Amino acid sequence: MAAEIVNPRSDSNTGAGAGSAPDDAFDPAFALHRGGKMAIQATVPVRDKDDLSLAYTPGVAKVCSAIAEQPELVHDYTWKSQVVAVVTDGTAVLGLGDIGPEASLPVMEGKAILFKQFGGVDAVPIALGTTDTDEIIETVVRMAPSFGGVNLEDISAPRCFEIERRLQERLDIPVFHDDQHGTAVVTLAALRNAAKLTDRSLGQLRAVISGAGAAGVAIAKILIEAGIGDVAVCDRKGVVSTDRGDLTDVKRDVAGFTNKGRLTGSLEDALDGADVFIGVSGGTVPEAAVAKMAKNSLIFAMANPTPEIHPDIAHKYAAVVATGRSDYPNQINNVLAFPGIFAGAMQVRASRITEGMKLAAAEALAAVVADELSADRVIPSPFDERVAPAVTAAVAAAARAEGVARR
Amino acid sequence: MAAEIVNPRSDSNTGAGAGSAPDDAFDPAFALHRGGKMAIQATVPVRDKDDLSLAYTPGVAKVCSAIAEQPELVHDYTWKSQVVAVVTDGTAVLGLGDIGPEASLPVMEGKAILFKQFGGVDAVPIALGTTDTDEIIETVVRMAPSFGGVNLEDISAPRCFEIERRLQERLDIPVFHDDQHGTAVVTLAALRNAAKLTDRSLGQLRAVISGAGAAGVAIAKILIEAGIGDVAVCDRKGVVSTDRGDLTDVKRDVAGFTNKGRLTGSLEDALDGADVFIGVSGGTVPEAAVAKMAKNSLIFAMANPTPEIHPDIAHKYAAVVATGRSDYPNQINNVLAFPGIFAGAMQVRASRITEGMKLAAAEALAAVVADELSADRVIPSPFDERVAPAVTAAVAAAARAEGVARR
Repeated sequence: MAAEIVNPRSDSNTGAGAGSAPDDAFDPAFALHRGGKMAIQATVPVRDKDDLSLAYTPGVAKVCSAIAEQPELVHDYTWKSQVVAVVTDGTAVLGLGDIGPEASLPVMEGKAILFKQFGGVDAVPIALGTTDTDEIIETVVRMAPSFGGVNLEDISAPRCFEIERRLQERLDIPVFHDDQHGTAVVTLAALRNAAKLTDRSLGQLRAVISGAGAAGVAIAKILIEAGIGDVAVCDRKGVVSTDRGDLTDVKRDVAGFTNKGRLTGSLEDALDGADVFIGVSGGTVPEAAVAKMAKNSLIFAMANPTPEIHPDIAHKYAAVVATGRSDYPNQINNVLAFPGIFAGAMQVRASRITEGMKLAAAEALAAVVADELSADRVIPSPFDERVAPAVTAAVAAAARAEGVARR
Repeated sequence: MAAEIVNPRSDSNTGAGAGSAPDDAFDPAFALHRGGKMAIQATVPVRDKDDLSLAYTPGVAKVCSAIAEQPELVHDYTWKSQVVAVVTDGTAVLGLGDIGPEASLPVMEGKAILFKQFGGVDAVPIALGTTDTDEIIETVVRMAPSFGGVNLEDISAPRCFEIERRLQERLDIPVFHDDQHGTAVVTLAALRNAAKLTDRSLGQLRAVISGAGAAGVAIAKILIEAGIGDVAVCDRKGVVSTDRGDLTDVKRDVAGFTNKGRLTGSLEDALDGADVFIGVSGGTVPEAAVAKMAKNSLIFAMANPTPEIHPDIAHKYAAVVATGRSDYPNQINNVLAFPGIFAGAMQVRASRITEGMKLAAAEALAAVVADELSADRVIPSPFDERVAPAVTAAVAAAARAEGVARR
C-alpha cells in the first residue's frame, strides 16, 4: 500500500516542509477525516427538568436498582446489547503493520461507522496502549460489562488466536476476530456460489490458500467445516504440512486438520491441478503456476492493493475471479459479514459466535445473489440492502438452533 | 433514595410476581430507558463505493500513516479529542451504593448524554468489572489512547482519590472525578454569588462541611483555593481535626489544610457561629444547631433526596438556601460544570484540569447569573444556554494561562 500513503513529512505533499500537517484542501481523505467520523447521539430528550428527572436523577435510580436485582435487565434498559467494542492494539493495521493504537483509530472509527451503517449496531473504537497478550485480555474482560460484543481488529498473528480464544472462554458475550472470521465467511459465501456456477459441490474442490496468518487459518477452518474436498495452506516456505519441523503451534494445528492429500513443497507445487486459489498473503503467483491449475479454476486473489494474481491473468485460466478490491467485480469485503453477524448474535443475546452461526452467515450471504449469479457476481455488493437483514436473520436462527441464544 | 426505588420483585410493581420484569407501561422511567439512551452516529457519509473508499480502505490508510508519522495528528483526524470515557466501577452509584458495573450503566449513559446535550462532548460509558485500585488504573491507562479525557464517576472514597491522582500522573489527557470537582465547582460558584448577595467576601466566611467523602474533601480544597475565611470538615464523628487519632490518610490530609480555627467536637459544635453550612453527607442537622449559626447564614443542604436541613427550616434562619433537588430554587447540579469543563479543556487539548481551571469554571458559572442575582438565584438553571459556553471559554483560557494547553 506504500504507493497510496501520503508522507506528511514530504514537501511534495503540502509544500510546507518537514513535519507539517497534511493539507485537507489537497486530499479528500484528510478533509473527510477532520474531526473524526463519528459522534454520540442521545436517543431520548433532555430538553427540560422533567426529561432530566427521568433520564438522569432521580428517575434513573429505579432502573439501576432493577438491574441490580435482576442483572439480565441490563440488556433491556441500557445500550449494552446493541454496542460492540472494536478492540485493537494497532499491531496489524491494514497493510501498514504495527503502527500503534493512535494511528489505528481512523480504521477503528471506519469499522464503527460500518457497523452502524450496515448492521444498525453501535460500536466504539477501543485502541489499546499495550501489545501484551495477557494485558489485552485482562483489559477487555474488565470493560466487558459495558458491551454486548467484542470485535477484535487488526491484532497480529499468532497473538490474535490466543486472545480471541481466551477472551471467549472468560466472557459470555460474542468475541469475534473479524480479520479471521469475517474474511472466512465472505470467502466461503463466494466460493459456494462459484462452485454452484461451475456445477460442482464444495466436496469436489481442492483448494490452496496462500497465507497462514489470521485470515488464512480461519478460511481453512471454515472450508473444512463446510465440507471442502481438500485444502492446503501455504506460508512463505510452502505447504504447511505435518512433516515440517519449523511450524508454530498454530501452524502445527493447521497442518493437522488440513492437507488430506499430504502435499509437500512450494505453493506452486500445491497449485498443480488445484481447483481453487485463495490468496490472503500478498506476494505474487507466477502465471505458469496459475496455468497448471485444474480446468474451471476459481481464483480469489484478495491481497490489497495488489492481488497475488492480476485479474487479467487470472481470467485467462479461471472460471471465476474475485479480489479484495472495490474496482473489480466480486470484491471479498468483510463488511458483507460482520455487521449482520453481530446484529444477529446480539439480537438473540448469543453468548458466543459458533461455527454454525458463521456457516449460516455464509449461506445466507451466498443466497442473496440467487438468480443474479454469474461469473462477475458470486457475491453481492456491499451496498445491496438485502445483505445485512439476511445475514442477521440467519445468524440469529443459527444461534437459537445451537443453543447459545438467551432470548 | 429507597422510597423512590421500584423493587422489581415486588408484586405491587408489576402485578406479575417475584423476579418479573418491570412493566414499562406503568413507569415512564422504565419506558424511557428501554433500549438505552444513546447511539453512535456516523458523521460522514457511507452511501456508495466512493464514500467507502475515503472513510475506509484504501483512503483511510494515508490518514493512519500520517498519524503514525506525526502522533499529534490523531487529535485532528479522529474523534479522540472530542470523546470522554465515563469510567466507573459501580461502587458508589447515586445513593444506591455498590451496585456493580452493569447496574450503574443507566447513570453512565445519562452522564454521557448530558455531556453531549450540554457541552457538545461525546462520551462513552465504561463500567469496569473490577473494584481493585491497581486494576482500574491499569485498565484506564491501556484504553486511554482512544480518548481525549477521562471522567471518573461514582467510584467510592477513598479509592477515588488515589485512582484520580495516579491516573493523572500517568496520562496526558484530563482525568476528572466529577463527584469531587464537579460538585466543588458548582458549590463554589453558588457560594460566590451568595456571598456577593449578602455583601461579603469569601474571606469573611467561616464554613462547615458535613461529609468527608469525595465531594466534601473536594469542596474544602476549592474553598481554600478560592480564599474562604475558614472551613471545617465533619465526618460522622465530628470535626476532622489534627488531634484525632482515628483518621484515614485522606482525612489526616484534610485536617492539615482545613480548620485554622482548631475546632473540635461535633458538627453541631462547629456550626455555632458559622456562616456557611454545606451538606454532602445525608443525615439530618437539628434545627437547634441551625439556629446557632451566624446571622445571614448560607445553607447548602445538598443530600438527595432528603436535604440535611429541610429548606423550610433553613429559610427560617438563612439568607440563602440551596439544595441538590430540582424542585427547589438554587439546585447545586454538576451538569452546570462538567460539560463545559471538559469542552474547554479538550478544545485546547489540555493535558490536565488544574485548580486554576476549576476556579475559572466556578467564576464563569457564577458570572452567568449577573443582574439576575437574588436569594432564589445564586446559580443558573441547568437549562440556561449561556452556561456551557461561558464555562468552556473560561476553562480554555485558564488552561492557556496555566500552560497546560497544547494548542
